[in-house]
Amino acid sequence: MKLAEIGEFALIAAIKEMTAEGEGVIKGIGDDVAVLRPSPGKVFLVTTDLLLEKVHFRLELTDPYRLGRKAVAVNLSDIAACGGTPTAFLVSLTIPAETEVAFVQALYQGMLEQSQEFKVSLVGGDTSRGNGLLISITLIGEAEEGAIIYREGARKGDLIFVTGSLGDAALGLEMLKQGKRDGGPVQRHLAPLPRVKEGQAIARQSLATAMIDISDGLVADLGHIVETSKVGAKIWLSRLPISEEYRKEVEGYSTDPYALALSGGEDYELLFTSAPEKERAVGKLAEELGIPIQAIGEVVDASAGVRVIEEGGKEYPLKQKGHDHFR
Amino acid sequence: MKLAEIGEFALIAAIKEMTAEGEGVIKGIGDDVAVLRPSPGKVFLVTTDLLLEKVHFRLELTDPYRLGRKAVAVNLSDIAACGGTPTAFLVSLTIPAETEVAFVQALYQGMLEQSQEFKVSLVGGDTSRGNGLLISITLIGEAEEGAIIYREGARKGDLIFVTGSLGDAALGLEMLKQGKRDGGPVQRHLAPLPRVKEGQAIARQSLATAMIDISDGLVADLGHIVETSKVGAKIWLSRLPISEEYRKEVEGYSTDPYALALSGGEDYELLFTSAPEKERAVGKLAEELGIPIQAIGEVVDASAGVRVIEEGGKEYPLKQKGHDHFR
Repeated sequence: MKLAEIGEFALIAAIKEMTAEGEGVIKGIGDDVAVLRPSPGKVFLVTTDLLLEKVHFRLELTDPYRLGRKAVAVNLSDIAACGGTPTAFLVSLTIPAETEVAFVQALYQGMLEQSQEFKVSLVGGDTSRGNGLLISITLIGEAEEGAIIYREGARKGDLIFVTGSLGDAALGLEMLKQGKRDGGPVQRHLAPLPRVKEGQAIARQSLATAMIDISDGLVADLGHIVETSKVGAKIWLSRLPISEEYRKEVEGYSTDPYALALSGGEDYELLFTSAPEKERAVGKLAEELGIPIQAIGEVVDASAGVRVIEEGGKEYPLKQKGHDHFR
Repeated sequence: MKLAEIGEFALIAAIKEMTAEGEGVIKGIGDDVAVLRPSPGKVFLVTTDLLLEKVHFRLELTDPYRLGRKAVAVNLSDIAACGGTPTAFLVSLTIPAETEVAFVQALYQGMLEQSQEFKVSLVGGDTSRGNGLLISITLIGEAEEGAIIYREGARKGDLIFVTGSLGDAALGLEMLKQGKRDGGPVQRHLAPLPRVKEGQAIARQSLATAMIDISDGLVADLGHIVETSKVGAKIWLSRLPISEEYRKEVEGYSTDPYALALSGGEDYELLFTSAPEKERAVGKLAEELGIPIQAIGEVVDASAGVRVIEEGGKEYPLKQKGHDHFR
């Protein structure tokens, strides 16, 4: 059965049927607006990220369920990056009228399962026919105003930390393009795990002076921190957290063994800066959370920009800084 | 100069430069999330509407400034329809890389001027290259929980009211397609005026049992009210508020003189139901606001659905009920 056969309003009714509304949702899908109750004393967070077919994803390399999960996950990652708690989301779709209803259901199932894992409710959206598939999600959350971590706030002398490992998602995309369908890196590309509870813990324990999630690549996203914080950064190449699989596979896909870890996007790890005296507390948190959190560099004067330093002190040449959508 | 030449980050910086942030905005454009402070005792409203090239608009029939205004106006209209106060918005764009920067600036100028008229701040968004232009806006607002007017709530015996006049926007679109570039109906199509202060006044004075804005057409949107309220409705054909220009021009563009007023979309007038004893208060409000608010029908049993009645009591045949995006 195709969308054109059931029509827009039956689609909306079917989506509403799949949706469970959490507390705090006064009015969800089905009116002109969604209505949400703020928690006492909290401020409101809002972020939006879109995924467009042939730009952000290729349908031949993923499936609608995982695509739905990822569309929500990348937005959850933005809330994670400020240490907030996600609560509700809206999704706008453009989709060809000849799409199978089963495809759309799998897409929503992915979005709903990913969001429900974080107690996040679908509360509204808009749908339209279009030539290609576009998923535009707006995610809402809340936080204590004083605990929010921004991109600005990094200070000279701070250490730079990153959760998890780097470059796997970009390597996974290369592997997918070569026909690989399995393995950790492929999974990292198709089904990123947003670091929501990690971001909350970092905020709650006041461990970070600045934080961002890595979507554009380590160097580019660190660039956002240093620009807004008016500082510079040195990355210690030998300290980059690289997964076992990345180490084994990378040479089959890239002539530069560090390029994907430095500049590849979509790892959705958290990158943050901390005063050096917090290093022990960061290590303790990593243990509690059961994930690696690695010191990978230090904050320096603004004049340095972002530099990568090899063992011995030589500067490592950067070929590519990150992704620009219009270039 | 084209977008491809300045790049994504220069575009975001230029947009940020054009933006003025209102009170209540703790953090606007430029971080992972926007942060908003809720007004004490208010709940949060959120709505999203997208406009896609060749589906919702044609660039040869409008200009980027008016398109920007309209993209914001249709979202403001949704907040108006519940009686709320809009506060902030996010905009996601897909746009071809070869687009002129001046086009994008005019588009944002339209969005920003329209939003600033209602003291609404641009606080975030996402941009991506794409084959066509898509504008996806999420608008945030607030309201007193008890004063929000939903689609449900209409009761048998209520009168049905509509602000302003009907059919002009749909007529204007037909006129544009025939090469007309001026006149009231064309203006109504290209530059709709969201009824924000009217919606707020209706809510404040508790005049409505249910309310919606007319985006899909009178019959379709009244259909949304009767369905969610589990009632039916009769529209009195002779009472439809028709503008002078509509009366003069309609026969050049439609064989049925009422079709565009009954089923044409995008008037963005408010449609609401009220207890009959409120009729005088509604009339008084219309005078205060300086706009017509016309009683156009009555709420009846659910079995009736939505019917249009001619003078003398005969049912008027409906050719088209409204717009379905996938049919």
